[in-house]
Amino acid sequence: MAPQYAPSLRSCLAPLLLFLQIGFIAICYFYVEIENNVNGITFSSLYPVFQDLNVVVFLGFGFLSTFLVRYGFSGSGFNLLVAVLATQWALILNGMESWYYRGKIWVDMRSLVIAKMCAASVLISLGAVQGKTNPVHLVLMALLEVFGFVLNGWLLQTLLKVRPLNSIMLLHIFGAVFGLILTWVLYRKESNQGYEKEKLSRKTGLFSLLGTVFLWMFWPSFNSILVDFHFPERRLRAVCSTYLALAVSGVASVAMSVLSSPRGKVNPAHLLSCLLSGGVAVGVPMSVIDHPWEAMTIGLTATVVSTIGFQYFKNHMLFAFDCHDTCSVLSTHGLPGLLGWLAHLLLQLKHCDDHTAATRFAAYHICVLLITISTSLIMGIITGIILKWDIWRPPQDKKCFDDQAYWKFEHLAVRK
Amino acid sequence: MAPQYAPSLRSCLAPLLLFLQIGFIAICYFYVEIENNVNGITFSSLYPVFQDLNVVVFLGFGFLSTFLVRYGFSGSGFNLLVAVLATQWALILNGMESWYYRGKIWVDMRSLVIAKMCAASVLISLGAVQGKTNPVHLVLMALLEVFGFVLNGWLLQTLLKVRPLNSIMLLHIFGAVFGLILTWVLYRKESNQGYEKEKLSRKTGLFSLLGTVFLWMFWPSFNSILVDFHFPERRLRAVCSTYLALAVSGVASVAMSVLSSPRGKVNPAHLLSCLLSGGVAVGVPMSVIDHPWEAMTIGLTATVVSTIGFQYFKNHMLFAFDCHDTCSVLSTHGLPGLLGWLAHLLLQLKHCDDHTAATRFAAYHICVLLITISTSLIMGIITGIILKWDIWRPPQDKKCFDDQAYWKFEHLAVRK
Amino acid sequence: MAPQYAPSLRSCLAPLLLFLQIGFIAICYFYVEIENNVNGITFSSLYPVFQDLNVVVFLGFGFLSTFLVRYGFSGSGFNLLVAVLATQWALILNGMESWYYRGKIWVDMRSLVIAKMCAASVLISLGAVQGKTNPVHLVLMALLEVFGFVLNGWLLQTLLKVRPLNSIMLLHIFGAVFGLILTWVLYRKESNQGYEKEKLSRKTGLFSLLGTVFLWMFWPSFNSILVDFHFPERRLRAVCSTYLALAVSGVASVAMSVLSSPRGKVNPAHLLSCLLSGGVAVGVPMSVIDHPWEAMTIGLTATVVSTIGFQYFKNHMLFAFDCHDTCSVLSTHGLPGLLGWLAHLLLQLKHCDDHTAATRFAAYHICVLLITISTSLIMGIITGIILKWDIWRPPQDKKCFDDQAYWKFEHLAVRK
Repeated sequence: MAPQYAPSLRSCLAPLLLFLQIGFIAICYFYVEIENNVNGITFSSLYPVFQDLNVVVFLGFGFLSTFLVRYGFSGSGFNLLVAVLATQWALILNGMESWYYRGKIWVDMRSLVIAKMCAASVLISLGAVQGKTNPVHLVLMALLEVFGFVLNGWLLQTLLKVRPLNSIMLLHIFGAVFGLILTWVLYRKESNQGYEKEKLSRKTGLFSLLGTVFLWMFWPSFNSILVDFHFPERRLRAVCSTYLALAVSGVASVAMSVLSSPRGKVNPAHLLSCLLSGGVAVGVPMSVIDHPWEAMTIGLTATVVSTIGFQYFKNHMLFAFDCHDTCSVLSTHGLPGLLGWLAHLLLQLKHCDDHTAATRFAAYHICVLLITISTSLIMGIITGIILKWDIWRPPQDKKCFDDQAYWKFEHLAVRK
Repeated sequence: MAPQYAPSLRSCLAPLLLFLQIGFIAICYFYVEIENNVNGITFSSLYPVFQDLNVVVFLGFGFLSTFLVRYGFSGSGFNLLVAVLATQWALILNGMESWYYRGKIWVDMRSLVIAKMCAASVLISLGAVQGKTNPVHLVLMALLEVFGFVLNGWLLQTLLKVRPLNSIMLLHIFGAVFGLILTWVLYRKESNQGYEKEKLSRKTGLFSLLGTVFLWMFWPSFNSILVDFHFPERRLRAVCSTYLALAVSGVASVAMSVLSSPRGKVNPAHLLSCLLSGGVAVGVPMSVIDHPWEAMTIGLTATVVSTIGFQYFKNHMLFAFDCHDTCSVLSTHGLPGLLGWLAHLLLQLKHCDDHTAATRFAAYHICVLLITISTSLIMGIITGIILKWDIWRPPQDKKCFDDQAYWKFEHLAVRK
Repeated sequence: MAPQYAPSLRSCLAPLLLFLQIGFIAICYFYVEIENNVNGITFSSLYPVFQDLNVVVFLGFGFLSTFLVRYGFSGSGFNLLVAVLATQWALILNGMESWYYRGKIWVDMRSLVIAKMCAASVLISLGAVQGKTNPVHLVLMALLEVFGFVLNGWLLQTLLKVRPLNSIMLLHIFGAVFGLILTWVLYRKESNQGYEKEKLSRKTGLFSLLGTVFLWMFWPSFNSILVDFHFPERRLRAVCSTYLALAVSGVASVAMSVLSSPRGKVNPAHLLSCLLSGGVAVGVPMSVIDHPWEAMTIGLTATVVSTIGFQYFKNHMLFAFDCHDTCSVLSTHGLPGLLGWLAHLLLQLKHCDDHTAATRFAAYHICVLLITISTSLIMGIITGIILKWDIWRPPQDKKCFDDQAYWKFEHLAVRK
């Protein structure tokens, strides 16, 4: 019955949100200041890309999950909630080092950008648990995952001297592994029978396509935003590579969808989940891509892998491993991210002259992946164990994937 | 009956629009020229923000009111019509001074930006009368309100030497007061019983959420566009403050919505109307905000005030004062705008060293508010009296909040 | 029966797409490199406009045709497919000259922009044949039309020394003529009776309005993107002219729609097709527009012509000439484009001092138009003859304008 959930929001979500928000403001009161030495030209160059990133994070990821037939408001609304919480939390955690050495956390455009990238890793994991969790779960997940992601960046930097640009681009792998392990821990028996409401609706499907097209259009900004603005040729290379990889994904995802559907039609769910794979894959090894064909080949491979992942792995994961991946983050972010990691390794090896350097880089690169996956797994399991508690009142099975559980709609007598 | 309205559009709206448009072109023929001395870097910096403002004004405000179950086309279409008319009219009125001294009205990016900000004040008032007016009403309202808003800016500048940046940011207060007094004058008895078609629809609600998210995302551009482009650190401060205030609003509006709903669910109408309140409130005192916590506190307070306003004042205004505020501009723009004005006063007083300066500033600041509210009230009442005439053929009660009254749809035999 | 179409996609579309994509990658492997000498400020200025163009091409044109009641996914999805294919193909064809002289095709932001403009010409033609073709048709059309458009640019440059900026702006005329002649060749008898599914739906109409508003908002970027970035005053003039012409179109299209509808209501289809006409018309003669009133007059005339074209020519074309123009590209792009060409002629003649120069310019200008229309007609007829083949399995009449023919939707038991 509905009253069962309502208390969970009123007695738990609202106080939690207000507590966190007042806490953040208190921290800001004592420790956060706006950086003052701004360069006018750099600011003007960065600002439009900063806004594009807003579109990717708040609109794109949010409307992507509106395809669920009765879950449009939760999909987009809770995405916004999680994104703004995670951004604030990441801003504070990322500023810890500066706080330690300089006594203050300095905020400028770059720190806001990095905070939003950290939030993006949470939004990826969100896709895996969408529909089977309540907003309290999502808030806790956001707090723990941002902590894990920042910790991972710090570990990589301290242990292996990985630059922030490269460690942040592992967000696809981190987010996907975290989300998958979390949905595995939170597994419900009902998932095997399939939720009727988990299907794609023709009507809200267009909203989802709109979100995907926005992600697709502004993905070059997402991939190039962390590239140093003093090297325009590197930004150009990042933008062109991403753009071409995305174009290839556009063509290939239609072709692969037709080939893998039983009756040879295009499956809109394939489009929603594979259109972006080229851009995701190319983001990871971006700093070593020199030629358009490399980006395009990565894009093509990523789309093929992603479609196969969606078509075959998704159900396999559910039935064999009890891992119910709502928005198929495995094929949208996980596999393309891993492919990008592999491409990075291969491209770097091609550039190496001697055997020793190659072996050393390979070992280093594998360590980076292992640390990322380990941190992600461990944090995912911890989060899962915490979220498994009945104290958070998980939604009943029949209320899963349904806006009615958390949103108040008026009864309408008029026909639309 | 439908034929009753049709003549009003054909005999009144179409000639009026063509007359106005040809008039504007004639004025442009004689007096308007494009400014020639452009600085390349400034142009390139301003252009993306100029486009963001387009998204706020034409898309954001337009799609915000698509939540009305049968009013999507009117909500977004008439918003566009009013916005383009008001922009042209404001461009001419704002150029009056330049015409007086230099013989020509010079158009450049900045004058287009200011014209769009004036149009935004009309779009705010539009929210209050939405659904109970016909397009002829809206066109007349646009003409009179832009005149009032420009007059208010001129009064403030002449009498109190208020800079345009500060006077334009009072648009929220001006627009809300104008809209509320107008809807009070145009009050209909039926409003007390409530219109069935005024409710939020689950299907078109997502369009409204989309519009709100666009407003939300591009609001930092709206707040920072008038800041002098030669001071990048001021723009950075404006962007960061707005961004943080909006993030706080995102968290707090969900929490407040849960707390104020009887069954502890999130009310989508709260989200649509309170998500923006932090950004609105922080826009008014922007030039005196120095620290992130100030912006965040203003954001939190604004959201609390806005939710309470929506939940309790809206109905109270209707039943006690006969003031039927369709999109609740009181809580979305009015209260947060007043709060911003108050925050401006408090922050400025904190900076004042001696008592005399503080008293003088307080008096000055209260005068600014009183002039703005007076101009707005007077213009609103004049507009209301003019619109009350039956000559404009107001829509019948049963045709209120219905696209059918003004839009021609074909009968569809196919099922969607 | 459905199985009839399925093989066409699986046996034809998928291999064709993969073949093309692998071919493009192979060409890139041998010949395409990223240009290296980038100027930081120019890059930063161009990048936001580049992204705006993405929105116009991939989102705007795509969602414009979602008004068709059961064709939303095909309208937006196939638009994306055609756009990414055409962009890649145009990138290679446009690079032919550089390949001939320098041995490599150099890619930078400008070449990507020009490639997207070529793709836009295909998207215009797409509007004319939308709903009556299958994706294989669309892919072939994209390949042939891009070839024709690049050929036309090359002819104009070689024979008449027309600058790329001016020849590319003829894309509206080229695309409209190509699309009209193609839909004439592909004429089906059923069109005369009208397809029930070709009507505008109230529900998906809002998506279409959203697409149109995006086109409208970012059209100043579309018109000004090819203007040399070293002349900011020319860009300013292009932006202001386009903006004012669009504003006039906004007012005039509502007025004209009311005047031309039998019962004096606004027809949403008019808005969708005429809102942009001012921007289209002003794009062609942009380089010779000096005063705002010129742009506004062109905008007003274009809207009047466009509405009349929509209301009277569209049906006339169908019944008298067997030319079934789905999205009425004649009135949206064809007539405004021609009007722009005429305005260019008149404005240039006004600037000419003596009679000889005027006559020479007129002859030159008419030649430009004739060459463009001839190339377009010839390529359109060739394309039509190729597409007429039954080998491509055109959709049955009852499957026209229906997503079901190409998209796989799950059966939904839940009520939305």
